[in-house]
Amino acid sequence: MPVSFNPWCRDAWGGAYTIEQYRNKIESFHGYPAPGLFIGGKMVDMALSRLPEGRLFDAISETGNCLPDAIQVLTPCTIGNGWLRVFTFGKFALSLYDKQTGRGVRVYLDPEKLSGWKEIDSWFFRKIPKAQQDRDALESEIFRAGDQILEAVAVQVHPAGLAKAGVGERNICPRCGESYPLRHGALCRACAGASPYIQNERQE
Amino acid sequence: MPVSFNPWCRDAWGGAYTIEQYRNKIESFHGYPAPGLFIGGKMVDMALSRLPEGRLFDAISETGNCLPDAIQVLTPCTIGNGWLRVFTFGKFALSLYDKQTGRGVRVYLDPEKLSGWKEIDSWFFRKIPKAQQDRDALESEIFRAGDQILEAVAVQVHPAGLAKAGVGERNICPRCGESYPLRHGALCRACAGASPYIQNERQE
Repeated sequence: MPVSFNPWCRDAWGGAYTIEQYRNKIESFHGYPAPGLFIGGKMVDMALSRLPEGRLFDAISETGNCLPDAIQVLTPCTIGNGWLRVFTFGKFALSLYDKQTGRGVRVYLDPEKLSGWKEIDSWFFRKIPKAQQDRDALESEIFRAGDQILEAVAVQVHPAGLAKAGVGERNICPRCGESYPLRHGALCRACAGASPYIQNERQE
Repeated sequence: MPVSFNPWCRDAWGGAYTIEQYRNKIESFHGYPAPGLFIGGKMVDMALSRLPEGRLFDAISETGNCLPDAIQVLTPCTIGNGWLRVFTFGKFALSLYDKQTGRGVRVYLDPEKLSGWKEIDSWFFRKIPKAQQDRDALESEIFRAGDQILEAVAVQVHPAGLAKAGVGERNICPRCGESYPLRHGALCRACAGASPYIQNERQE
């Protein structure tokens, strides 16, 4: 038994992970141990530690980069189960909040707190090209900084954000013949012009 | 060694899962074995089997429900690493495509093929309330139907969808003091009105 076990982050089920254990978790899910995911793990930990125990919560990520995966790895909230919503604000911030009341905690990287952390500051504000970055120095600074570069605030999520839209009644799109939510209108969104494909045809 | 091993789905690393093995995987990630995730596993399997081997691919889910998690569980593509994009079309369809060329495979649930599958048809088109649904009958029909309710087509993803936007140059928002992508304008999107919070204040 180690004399002191100092976990980097905890998950929503009470599990605790050293840096190396968490590195393995994020490598296996995210593909590589991105600096943003190490910070993200600490952010989730900080939010979890400020939530009342035993409540069901939902999550918000204010960026599509890295943070959604820290949330998906450490909490029951995923994109596909609807408990995680991603806002493409490009802000390094996340929230965990009570599903019913919307009250919760938001944790963000505070730019004012980066001044003492040269490597994190250069990485976060892209002051030097990625190829010239000293990866080991950056990681080691992230581990020393821990939650000192973060801030936690109480938030109340807007009631409109608490209702899940769901699919509702389905319709068959007269153009593609596929099913879509009737409330989207007379055509599915893809046929209405938002399709990401320029070609979409049956294979032999 | 079993006489016949008939996997429900395969993952992108060559792993193969029986229904029960896949059920465990989705329970641990998604929280519960949703019918949509069983079908989603078969959809990912069908798309993977039609892609050339050894190419790096990205993924699209055309709904935020269930399918993103089938993709995240069975492929390297996640929301946080940017290899999975979610379009909120409410369409039960996904694509895997070559990162470089955009050529790939789209798999969708074909409403025309549901007529012979009463339970799946009722579930998918919400013909009976969730509480009255016979869950076992639905699952057993999903397992018997397999890929017979699906269709695969070749797709070419629009070149604009292949370029990753990235955060780009960062700015400090004059209202909240946090960092955001300069290209979003003079304020961060949250301060510009899109914030999901009605209250956002420092804790003691």
